[in-house]
Amino acid sequence: MRLFAHVAALCMLVMASSPLLAQQDPLPSWNDVASKRAIVAFVDRVTRVGSPDLVPPAERIATFDNDGTLWLEQPYYVQLAFVIDRIKALAASHPEWRTEQPFAAILANDLAQLRGNVGEPELMKMLAATHAGMTTDEFSATVTDWITTARHPMKDKLYTELVYQPMLELLAYLRTNGFKTYIVSGGGIEFMRPWAERVYGVPPEQVIGSSLKLELQVRDGQPVLLKLPAVDLIDDKAGKPVGIQRSIGRRPLMAFGNSDGDLEMLQWTTAGAGPRFALLVHHTDAEREWAYDRDSRIGELDRAWDEALAHGWTVVDMKSDWRTLFP
Amino acid sequence: MRLFAHVAALCMLVMASSPLLAQQDPLPSWNDVASKRAIVAFVDRVTRVGSPDLVPPAERIATFDNDGTLWLEQPYYVQLAFVIDRIKALAASHPEWRTEQPFAAILANDLAQLRGNVGEPELMKMLAATHAGMTTDEFSATVTDWITTARHPMKDKLYTELVYQPMLELLAYLRTNGFKTYIVSGGGIEFMRPWAERVYGVPPEQVIGSSLKLELQVRDGQPVLLKLPAVDLIDDKAGKPVGIQRSIGRRPLMAFGNSDGDLEMLQWTTAGAGPRFALLVHHTDAEREWAYDRDSRIGELDRAWDEALAHGWTVVDMKSDWRTLFP
Repeated sequence: MRLFAHVAALCMLVMASSPLLAQQDPLPSWNDVASKRAIVAFVDRVTRVGSPDLVPPAERIATFDNDGTLWLEQPYYVQLAFVIDRIKALAASHPEWRTEQPFAAILANDLAQLRGNVGEPELMKMLAATHAGMTTDEFSATVTDWITTARHPMKDKLYTELVYQPMLELLAYLRTNGFKTYIVSGGGIEFMRPWAERVYGVPPEQVIGSSLKLELQVRDGQPVLLKLPAVDLIDDKAGKPVGIQRSIGRRPLMAFGNSDGDLEMLQWTTAGAGPRFALLVHHTDAEREWAYDRDSRIGELDRAWDEALAHGWTVVDMKSDWRTLFP
Repeated sequence: MRLFAHVAALCMLVMASSPLLAQQDPLPSWNDVASKRAIVAFVDRVTRVGSPDLVPPAERIATFDNDGTLWLEQPYYVQLAFVIDRIKALAASHPEWRTEQPFAAILANDLAQLRGNVGEPELMKMLAATHAGMTTDEFSATVTDWITTARHPMKDKLYTELVYQPMLELLAYLRTNGFKTYIVSGGGIEFMRPWAERVYGVPPEQVIGSSLKLELQVRDGQPVLLKLPAVDLIDDKAGKPVGIQRSIGRRPLMAFGNSDGDLEMLQWTTAGAGPRFALLVHHTDAEREWAYDRDSRIGELDRAWDEALAHGWTVVDMKSDWRTLFP
């Protein structure tokens, strides 16, 4: 083995020290601003050989919120667009929906009526009608069909084209530096898994999200997993550290979010021993996207912003920090 | 980048084709038997470049049961030994346990009484007393203390010395071939995570097990995750495919178990499209370990054995297939 080990070590050395690699900016869509410098400085601090704060690769966990952090979330969550489209597609076999709320409002395209009257029971009805009563494989196929054809109502693009290019670069940059990148989203886990690997480079086992309970059944002699109309985990707010512990079992080294729904994840992350990094994306770009924070119905950034200011967390000013928004 | 790419490609080629690697037997503790040949043939089939059944590395998922598959489970589950030791350690602050079952039987070392009288309510009492009401960090520290000192009642060894050497080699062999190795156990997820990386090379995020519900709380201004006395998942039997879907989101390519508790995991695995592999460890070695199957109270192997015979799954005869048992 000795000769082989020498050859391998030499190869590693050649690859690691290549000046061609070092010259490339791994975050070209970020302007040369404080947020970018904070990210690069932190990654250097925890990954550079010889750094007193070097963290072993196994412990380099980075968690990313999805809606508003990796892709846009306005004028309403992408998953709500999916729910609305599914209800319309299924309406023919549900004549009762024409008079039953919230279905009637959706079928009449009456979003104002919908907005004013959707509480938790209505949301559960919508989820049960569109996310439950089918197998995980069936749901995955439905999502794949939808995500490859549905278009954003105002941008006229596929939703997967409305992911943030600077964050794609950041995901890749962290992985190059030995990080495992996770999604930790209030959105549905089975709604993200079918396309997260292709779009974000995040495999299904590194997607954490809200979920319904599953039940093993046998159909035509084959085992299937049925999605039940019962919540298993709401992976939002205080549920995010729970989801992280359930699936990862270690505390993230870096966490990225954009709203009050991410506050507990960022607190959980930064409460860990040693160096930790927390970042919030502040939506300030009304021209290229949307500008919203403290008073927004979707993606409210209020308490988390105060905490960021109090603790010196990194805040991205989308308008001035990001050179390019979408790929 | 072109020069760098050439150098890197050359290095990969040198490493991949090294005859020094090929000469080593990756499974030296396995005799040259059918089970070993079946494993090696399957791994070759799904990993060899040019194989018509080549599976991309991202989909190479292997799941392992723990009790009776990776370490011993007789004369009773290791986690039960932990529960008993914890109840004894906590008894001083619980005088009421002296008359309350199942605690009284445990404190009196009356295992016969315990065995005859432990149903689900008693088990939940024992779990609540020893696994709940503390933070995940506190529980992890308790497990680490215990696992590094407690000894098997008959073998007089640390439990982590009673893992199966052939399975350690198998885990490493699969990882060398691009597999992600997971534990999928009926045992407690937080009971395995503190030592699974050190002993099995399986990081916390690749440990799936039974779990209690968690709740985020703030103590002294710091967020903690409290283990509640309420079951979140029983990762056994029909719960194993559920646990796999929850945490991995893809079907395993290979699955390894030893008892009826693993049947649904093996069925779920082999029901996937393309080549799949299922293996059962049959405990036949009364001399070096224990011999048990259809009538055993612990690790019963009955229906799963019939299924293995019917479907041609690989069955390891521990006595004749394994040259070495423990490291």
